[in-house]
Amino acid sequence: MDKVRIGSAGLGRLGLQHAVNIAGRIQNAGLTALCDVDGVKLKEAADRLGVSRRFTRFEDMASSPEIDAVVLASPSALHTGQIAAALAAGKHVFSEKPLGVTVAECKEAEKAVEARPDLVFMLGFMRRFDESYRYAHAKVSAGEIGKPVLFRSYSQDPEKFIAGAIAFAPHSGGQFLDMAVHDIDLARWFTGSEPETVYAIGGCYAHPEFAASKDGDNVSCLMKFKNDCMVFLFAGRTAPHGYNVETEIIGTKGIVRIASVPQKNLVEVLDSHGVRRECSENFLERFDSAYVNEVQEFVDCIIQGKKPEVTVYDGTRVSEIAYTCKAAFESGELIVM
Amino acid sequence: MDKVRIGSAGLGRLGLQHAVNIAGRIQNAGLTALCDVDGVKLKEAADRLGVSRRFTRFEDMASSPEIDAVVLASPSALHTGQIAAALAAGKHVFSEKPLGVTVAECKEAEKAVEARPDLVFMLGFMRRFDESYRYAHAKVSAGEIGKPVLFRSYSQDPEKFIAGAIAFAPHSGGQFLDMAVHDIDLARWFTGSEPETVYAIGGCYAHPEFAASKDGDNVSCLMKFKNDCMVFLFAGRTAPHGYNVETEIIGTKGIVRIASVPQKNLVEVLDSHGVRRECSENFLERFDSAYVNEVQEFVDCIIQGKKPEVTVYDGTRVSEIAYTCKAAFESGELIVM
Amino acid sequence: MDKVRIGSAGLGRLGLQHAVNIAGRIQNAGLTALCDVDGVKLKEAADRLGVSRRFTRFEDMASSPEIDAVVLASPSALHTGQIAAALAAGKHVFSEKPLGVTVAECKEAEKAVEARPDLVFMLGFMRRFDESYRYAHAKVSAGEIGKPVLFRSYSQDPEKFIAGAIAFAPHSGGQFLDMAVHDIDLARWFTGSEPETVYAIGGCYAHPEFAASKDGDNVSCLMKFKNDCMVFLFAGRTAPHGYNVETEIIGTKGIVRIASVPQKNLVEVLDSHGVRRECSENFLERFDSAYVNEVQEFVDCIIQGKKPEVTVYDGTRVSEIAYTCKAAFESGELIVM
Amino acid sequence: MDKVRIGSAGLGRLGLQHAVNIAGRIQNAGLTALCDVDGVKLKEAADRLGVSRRFTRFEDMASSPEIDAVVLASPSALHTGQIAAALAAGKHVFSEKPLGVTVAECKEAEKAVEARPDLVFMLGFMRRFDESYRYAHAKVSAGEIGKPVLFRSYSQDPEKFIAGAIAFAPHSGGQFLDMAVHDIDLARWFTGSEPETVYAIGGCYAHPEFAASKDGDNVSCLMKFKNDCMVFLFAGRTAPHGYNVETEIIGTKGIVRIASVPQKNLVEVLDSHGVRRECSENFLERFDSAYVNEVQEFVDCIIQGKKPEVTVYDGTRVSEIAYTCKAAFESGELIVM
Repeated sequence: MDKVRIGSAGLGRLGLQHAVNIAGRIQNAGLTALCDVDGVKLKEAADRLGVSRRFTRFEDMASSPEIDAVVLASPSALHTGQIAAALAAGKHVFSEKPLGVTVAECKEAEKAVEARPDLVFMLGFMRRFDESYRYAHAKVSAGEIGKPVLFRSYSQDPEKFIAGAIAFAPHSGGQFLDMAVHDIDLARWFTGSEPETVYAIGGCYAHPEFAASKDGDNVSCLMKFKNDCMVFLFAGRTAPHGYNVETEIIGTKGIVRIASVPQKNLVEVLDSHGVRRECSENFLERFDSAYVNEVQEFVDCIIQGKKPEVTVYDGTRVSEIAYTCKAAFESGELIVM
Repeated sequence: MDKVRIGSAGLGRLGLQHAVNIAGRIQNAGLTALCDVDGVKLKEAADRLGVSRRFTRFEDMASSPEIDAVVLASPSALHTGQIAAALAAGKHVFSEKPLGVTVAECKEAEKAVEARPDLVFMLGFMRRFDESYRYAHAKVSAGEIGKPVLFRSYSQDPEKFIAGAIAFAPHSGGQFLDMAVHDIDLARWFTGSEPETVYAIGGCYAHPEFAASKDGDNVSCLMKFKNDCMVFLFAGRTAPHGYNVETEIIGTKGIVRIASVPQKNLVEVLDSHGVRRECSENFLERFDSAYVNEVQEFVDCIIQGKKPEVTVYDGTRVSEIAYTCKAAFESGELIVM
Repeated sequence: MDKVRIGSAGLGRLGLQHAVNIAGRIQNAGLTALCDVDGVKLKEAADRLGVSRRFTRFEDMASSPEIDAVVLASPSALHTGQIAAALAAGKHVFSEKPLGVTVAECKEAEKAVEARPDLVFMLGFMRRFDESYRYAHAKVSAGEIGKPVLFRSYSQDPEKFIAGAIAFAPHSGGQFLDMAVHDIDLARWFTGSEPETVYAIGGCYAHPEFAASKDGDNVSCLMKFKNDCMVFLFAGRTAPHGYNVETEIIGTKGIVRIASVPQKNLVEVLDSHGVRRECSENFLERFDSAYVNEVQEFVDCIIQGKKPEVTVYDGTRVSEIAYTCKAAFESGELIVM
Repeated sequence: MDKVRIGSAGLGRLGLQHAVNIAGRIQNAGLTALCDVDGVKLKEAADRLGVSRRFTRFEDMASSPEIDAVVLASPSALHTGQIAAALAAGKHVFSEKPLGVTVAECKEAEKAVEARPDLVFMLGFMRRFDESYRYAHAKVSAGEIGKPVLFRSYSQDPEKFIAGAIAFAPHSGGQFLDMAVHDIDLARWFTGSEPETVYAIGGCYAHPEFAASKDGDNVSCLMKFKNDCMVFLFAGRTAPHGYNVETEIIGTKGIVRIASVPQKNLVEVLDSHGVRRECSENFLERFDSAYVNEVQEFVDCIIQGKKPEVTVYDGTRVSEIAYTCKAAFESGELIVM
């Protein structure tokens, strides 16, 4: 295959960005089709990007002979079904996280993937494709920091998006599933290990609305991994300064920190507020290149007949861990996995 | 009283620094006497600082009519007894942490303090007297960061001091008692609250020798405080870059970080290693002013007849919490306080 | 025109990068032809990028009916001639700096551009297309820093490239023409003004070889601009830490600094060297996106029938100023322009 | 001498700070007398610091047998006379900069100093006593950055002090004499060399009031030193962010930067303005320790019978250079020294 013909499903903020990227920033691929249940959004995006094949039903797109692969940025609840449908129709599949909204769904996705070993399946853990995370991972893998002692990772959304988060709360699965999954993925990727114990706390510090969904607006967990690495994760929805995703890995011989200041760019401003860095506004700004890189990797895998580093089992495992964090948070108990 | 005549006990690294500070950097006070069991050390320091009254027995110094107050930087195991002796002799007492090596000892110290309400007793939680911590505390107290959500604090000693730490391990009480007590004090000071649950983990990542003392070389704990604030503490003995004491308080409206880079000074070096900051080497360098400020506060309290903000009960409480962390670490269980 | 068919000339480091970018990272454009006098280099690049039209003579490519535009990354001495040839053949032209190696050549280029007002001509001042410089420029233009007081800009190449710089010295035109032109362009762009006086100094601090070309390894100049803004430029070939391009604009109401630490990415390393940032290695790494953005702008101008912000006259003006700096450096005199 | 009895003259902001420091922060010294023409200020300070010997005429204090040394923080125009009077009376002298308001006055001061080789004379170039500057100087002296290529130094006062600066303008001698003298001293100290050529520019960017005194609100100069080092100095009165004193020394093998961010302390604030450092407000805050250290050095020299590193000739030389900068600024000409 010289050029991968992609159909992209879901035209929310991230879905639209994927569509834009596929249309113009991914090599050896083309945006051949678009799908969204919202006909207005669909027309707008398809017109803008010059895409003639438009679908409001995913199954129709999945079965179209004119596409080779699908990119899923649809609502989480639809992922498993769409993954199965697309693979059954012989299409390569790139799916945004989560793999499924329950572990049972993840297991179904595993079966669908196992049934088509000839196709590429990849899950969108985009942080692994961010150049800074990759650079740090290379150092850690090369042994430059020695043995990992503490892995700490934060995912903080800006307070200004709180209304949307509150509205979405009943469907989000809670902060561990909605936000911390990326940190969980990173923890497994950097340590090469799995959690053994999980303790999770948090609450509604500013927005009591989350309580109705048994969720908080800020939560954290401390886990001991099987290789003894301590893992501390924090997820918050009330960041005052911007979109903050930072990670620190303390090793016995060195420490790496990724994005401890979530700077928007290389500009420093000196004014009446002091010396300051303006911050990233959202995930699309922070991970702009990573979103391109991950889909490029998907396309490269298809063309070169190789398999992505991230497997369907990583998706299941991350979901299992996130659900365990959620259970620990809800029960207040220490959970041994 | 115009000038407080101080007798200082213990001439280890910190004790010697206290002596030097009292001799020349504290206003309205004088270094009148020195005490150490090691006669050689005692002579050397007393000669250097021009102190004529020299004692190898603490009780002799405590009962001397020529001093008004004692500063204790003696071995931890001696604290409670010396506090009681000095107070009984009518001397004001400044004691380095810990208040006692067991909670029972702390309770005894409480009684000794309660028996002499006319005297000043103060405990050496020096971080409260560091200008950066004070500045941050003022902001938090003024409500500038809103409600505290996450309090995170690290105490890391440089790897290069590991031999001393290993030798001292059997007597240190473990990392939570030896190192994290300052972070526990800060957590209580910044949040104005107390822990409700404690989960602690860690291990020997580089130095198995600590296991013999049921200790680790790196440990951490996650606590939920009664006001819902999440508290994450980390203590490590293998820092590759220097003496690292950093704290972050994430609130609903703002965040403050103290010393996230443990820079030695304001010099930045650009060379083949990149753009870099050299780091503080040890607690004496990092907290040089704080050690002066705290003893100045002690002296000011004596002269002005006021009581220090840090009470004997803070000492007991911090010890109780550190022991709970230790118990949690040793048992692997979640402890509800 | 839907898609611009580009022929790229010159396959040095930057030329190759332009070719790679055009082949895969520029929207609405294609890499249709490649040209280099070195047949081996040409074959290698063309094979790798799948380009079938290959030329060793620029005139042949310029006259090819199968291309719409040329991108010039050829040796500086060839620029003026190639610009004229391509425009005469009816091709849009994007040329790397400098416009010409003498001011007379720049004037010729002006005539060639003026003769074909129907074609797009653009000069590669890529820093204007770097997102951080753009962000800072928007702030300055919006009046956020008030009136510009001091514009300071550094261009420093890493010491490790010194052998190449020494070899190239006889042909480089000196540091002001070879390196400071970008800073001169930025100074005019940020201040909207022109130099009135020029004083320039420097020398061979580490590498006497440059003296043979009346050049230094580190030079600087201080200029007063007509709007009174002070402009200080520094160019160096012996940077110990990496490729360092930084700019500061001090205004009466605010200050912006761009890249005062030339950090490679968002990773911070804490190890025995302290807390450090690793640095960009070269211009290709630092300005990777800017090189894409500038050619994208060129393509957008062609398709949308608009003219680039950077004109041929900017190229002449920058050369005139750089030559004045060179004259000031060589004579040791203050020059009033 | 065991303890130096000091009489301090001048109770402006800096003078008062010196008095406070001598009273309580300098070892082996005591504040024995105070002098100010303003009787109210004098009484207030003397009462507060418990000083019984009070003078409104400097000559009276200088001739008092009860003091050993004087510290001068009086108006600049009085320095030379007071230096001479005090030395003639057999007192050691520490004088704030400048040595004199004209070079002729400086020469007189030289004679007065030369006439009393038995006494200590020291000039208040406090930056040499700042721990960060000292640390950087030690690195440079040890050859860690190779040969100095560019020395760049800024002195910026916050805009909020502009009213005072305007009022003082007719008497300040201009920015080079009033502000840049410290940078000139640093340039000589770090490079061990002297200026050969001087070009200076600047103007009134925000406050035309300075023009009446032939001064600007922001000025700069570029000098070539005899050892070829390039020296760029900038002085500004309109800093938006705080009191900014920063220095960079670029060498052939390394670079050091001192206080490139004029951070107030180690606190970082993350809020709606981004990630920010609050800045030092004024010289008293930034150089608090340096002011103590320099007077301590003065006292140590007296007691130990040694001579300060900073000599009276340094004072003259710095004044000569500052006057040359002023002349260059006023004439617009390049001056060869």
